[in-house]
Amino acid sequence: MCDPSKLVTGTFLNLICVEELMGFAKRHILSMRDFSREEIDLILNRAIELEPFAKGKRSDRLRGKILANLFFEPSTRTRISFETAMKRLGGEVLNLDSTEGSSISKGETLADTIRVISGYSDIIVLRHPKEGAARLASEFSSVPLINAGDGAGHHPTQTLLDLYTIKRESKLEGLRIALVGDLKYGRTVHSLSIALSYYGARIMLVSPPALRMSEAIKNDLISSGADISEFENIQDVISDIDVLYVTRIQKERFPILSEYNKVAGSYRIDMKLLEKANENLIIMHPLPRVDEIDPEVDRTPHAAYFKQAFYGVPVRMALLTLLMEVDG
Amino acid sequence: MCDPSKLVTGTFLNLICVEELMGFAKRHILSMRDFSREEIDLILNRAIELEPFAKGKRSDRLRGKILANLFFEPSTRTRISFETAMKRLGGEVLNLDSTEGSSISKGETLADTIRVISGYSDIIVLRHPKEGAARLASEFSSVPLINAGDGAGHHPTQTLLDLYTIKRESKLEGLRIALVGDLKYGRTVHSLSIALSYYGARIMLVSPPALRMSEAIKNDLISSGADISEFENIQDVISDIDVLYVTRIQKERFPILSEYNKVAGSYRIDMKLLEKANENLIIMHPLPRVDEIDPEVDRTPHAAYFKQAFYGVPVRMALLTLLMEVDG
Amino acid sequence: MCDPSKLVTGTFLNLICVEELMGFAKRHILSMRDFSREEIDLILNRAIELEPFAKGKRSDRLRGKILANLFFEPSTRTRISFETAMKRLGGEVLNLDSTEGSSISKGETLADTIRVISGYSDIIVLRHPKEGAARLASEFSSVPLINAGDGAGHHPTQTLLDLYTIKRESKLEGLRIALVGDLKYGRTVHSLSIALSYYGARIMLVSPPALRMSEAIKNDLISSGADISEFENIQDVISDIDVLYVTRIQKERFPILSEYNKVAGSYRIDMKLLEKANENLIIMHPLPRVDEIDPEVDRTPHAAYFKQAFYGVPVRMALLTLLMEVDG
Repeated sequence: MCDPSKLVTGTFLNLICVEELMGFAKRHILSMRDFSREEIDLILNRAIELEPFAKGKRSDRLRGKILANLFFEPSTRTRISFETAMKRLGGEVLNLDSTEGSSISKGETLADTIRVISGYSDIIVLRHPKEGAARLASEFSSVPLINAGDGAGHHPTQTLLDLYTIKRESKLEGLRIALVGDLKYGRTVHSLSIALSYYGARIMLVSPPALRMSEAIKNDLISSGADISEFENIQDVISDIDVLYVTRIQKERFPILSEYNKVAGSYRIDMKLLEKANENLIIMHPLPRVDEIDPEVDRTPHAAYFKQAFYGVPVRMALLTLLMEVDG
Repeated sequence: MCDPSKLVTGTFLNLICVEELMGFAKRHILSMRDFSREEIDLILNRAIELEPFAKGKRSDRLRGKILANLFFEPSTRTRISFETAMKRLGGEVLNLDSTEGSSISKGETLADTIRVISGYSDIIVLRHPKEGAARLASEFSSVPLINAGDGAGHHPTQTLLDLYTIKRESKLEGLRIALVGDLKYGRTVHSLSIALSYYGARIMLVSPPALRMSEAIKNDLISSGADISEFENIQDVISDIDVLYVTRIQKERFPILSEYNKVAGSYRIDMKLLEKANENLIIMHPLPRVDEIDPEVDRTPHAAYFKQAFYGVPVRMALLTLLMEVDG
Repeated sequence: MCDPSKLVTGTFLNLICVEELMGFAKRHILSMRDFSREEIDLILNRAIELEPFAKGKRSDRLRGKILANLFFEPSTRTRISFETAMKRLGGEVLNLDSTEGSSISKGETLADTIRVISGYSDIIVLRHPKEGAARLASEFSSVPLINAGDGAGHHPTQTLLDLYTIKRESKLEGLRIALVGDLKYGRTVHSLSIALSYYGARIMLVSPPALRMSEAIKNDLISSGADISEFENIQDVISDIDVLYVTRIQKERFPILSEYNKVAGSYRIDMKLLEKANENLIIMHPLPRVDEIDPEVDRTPHAAYFKQAFYGVPVRMALLTLLMEVDG
């Protein structure tokens, strides 16, 4: 992938190409489409090296740098995951929450807000309710901007942490994964499927008919080379998979409550269902969960969802170091 | 108290037992009942050593560590006292305020919230409106958790800072203290009385009949060995005490406003009342005060309530170092 | 200005007087009236030295120090500008926002709030909706207090950053400046005019008749030695000035909407107007702007308003170092 004469040794163990690093430095991160397979591997490998620091080993790599969390809608989990990642690396964080997000741009364009904030910080993390907001904002930012969710659009660091969880707790090569629940409205699932297709995964889509993935997205996945098949019952796939990725089914999607109850019940993960699972099966969930997973499951080795939440920290640390440092 | 062969010299002057320190590290702090008299002394002595750092002398003892302030109801004073304590030691703080506290657990159990947050931090400070929330939360936390108030339940660091104020501004041994005001609903008073009984204090309970301490709590105090007696007028005790601990009388407790006015007037501390006081008397108040203490009193050497607020910092610093360091 | 025997060499290049520094340390900053011309120069010169650090060069000058941002009304831009300034110097920040600002003083006097907060911090930045609040607060603060806006009163660091922008992007000596827009209610303009008069500026006041500067303020400026003249149309001054300082005209000031529309239209800065401007003209605006400046102007070298926002950081860094350090 990389001309040997351009290999550099970072402060950590891995060897990396000058070009790859130069490509990352000062780049905006808007969508998973922005990454090649090699770049994803670079991020995931760096996250492995940074895990001890994510757990509290002291680091000063980003001392003196400032990250601005600019949130136009609340997303506490994403905010504090970035905040922890930055602080674990010795950096500082400015929080502009949704109330302030609104007030700061009261009668002001997003462009002006971004131009001001990029004068106060070294990197911007933007959460915005409107699709396309991150791309627009990036055009006015003099510092790297990370899209932390823009409406029904992209949320690339969520996909990266999902991939990292699979790498750490299962395997990325030869993976068999079931994506379960709301595949129509859940934005997580589309990006993750694209990324998994880089690794040749077999993807099983399991949803009630009303929440099936749209034809447009399925066609997009197929044209990206994804190996997908559809199911209605978890029972049909449970013994054939390495990863069960559960997403939330929202009551609001169902006009009739009894319809929701029926679906929610049959998609609930419990001990009985897991009897047929592989020994090494892991269960993932982007959290918060409501009733999708029985708390009894938490005590089994299958439960990977709390680790998954934690893995957001090393993955975001990896991205921050790549975007703010030229040397590895 | 401690086998001499197990004494260690800390980075500070005092000698401490290996077991005592080992006992603190990684422990949850839920109630004053969790502490022995020796442990309280250990905390208060360490707070004395840390006072110069609480006043701004630079320290890096907790550099790289993260404290999560998880507040499900607002308590700005407690939040920033912990935040200052952590930052004075070189550590970092994540603030999750009451709005976010609610949003983070929207449809999510406290258990799940705690499991996620304990992956992002090295210690959790929890404020919650429901009694017993701290104990429940501690069962799901992989890092030490400090109860910063749970409903009418406990708030141990408030008691510790009250004890510290008495130690610094008066004396813990042989103390004569009057607890004045709302002894029925004020949660501060019960924990403080228990802790004072470890030091053999003479405790005078001064309250209007409607706000007298409940029989159950009085019996609990007596069985803990506390030396208590009851009064209705401050005048009856003012010349016999070392500490006057004033608590707020809330209007809402009185069905008839005129009743409140009468009581509030007769429990107000002013210059005239203090004419009969000992020269060394100190006045304490957990703040905020409304009308309980005349501002003229602020200028006298009796006023200890602003120092008391400050003393929350060294006391919380002491606790943080004990919980996050194995070596002293 | 300064007895040569009292010159000291700071950690930076400039020579400074012992008295000047001693005068700054521990001082409250309430109004531009508190500064002599020499002190303003000292601040602006220090800001130049600190600019590389404002842009991300690492500094530990204020490590271990804590700034409290105490905001009783929202002003996100001012808050994060101070927060960035403090963090760029290695210091820490406590944020008490407007909601908390209200809650912390629920039934509590501002005096008590300040006494508590000054026990938790090394410097207080206060924003308050009531004129005179900063002066009152300063009387109860044991640490330096900076007025970051109190109602229609003062906001000295805004004026300092305006002066700094002029110094960096134009020139302070021999300046010809037009102040345009709402000169009646806009508080920025009064302080800035006083400060500019120290440097002998020629000040052109351009406003619609309804928003003309009050006679009282004009008299005050004249008695301070300011060289002022009044105009109604920007066209009359555009070719004679070095700086065009634009302020927002608020719809609420006009009882009839059509009146507002007429005024807003004729005070809008666009490319056509700039045809007659000097090549070196710079345009300033305290932001947020609404319709006062056409976005096309952003791309011209005249646009200085985003730099102006950034310059708040080095200016506030300069002030923080002067207030918290005795040695330069």
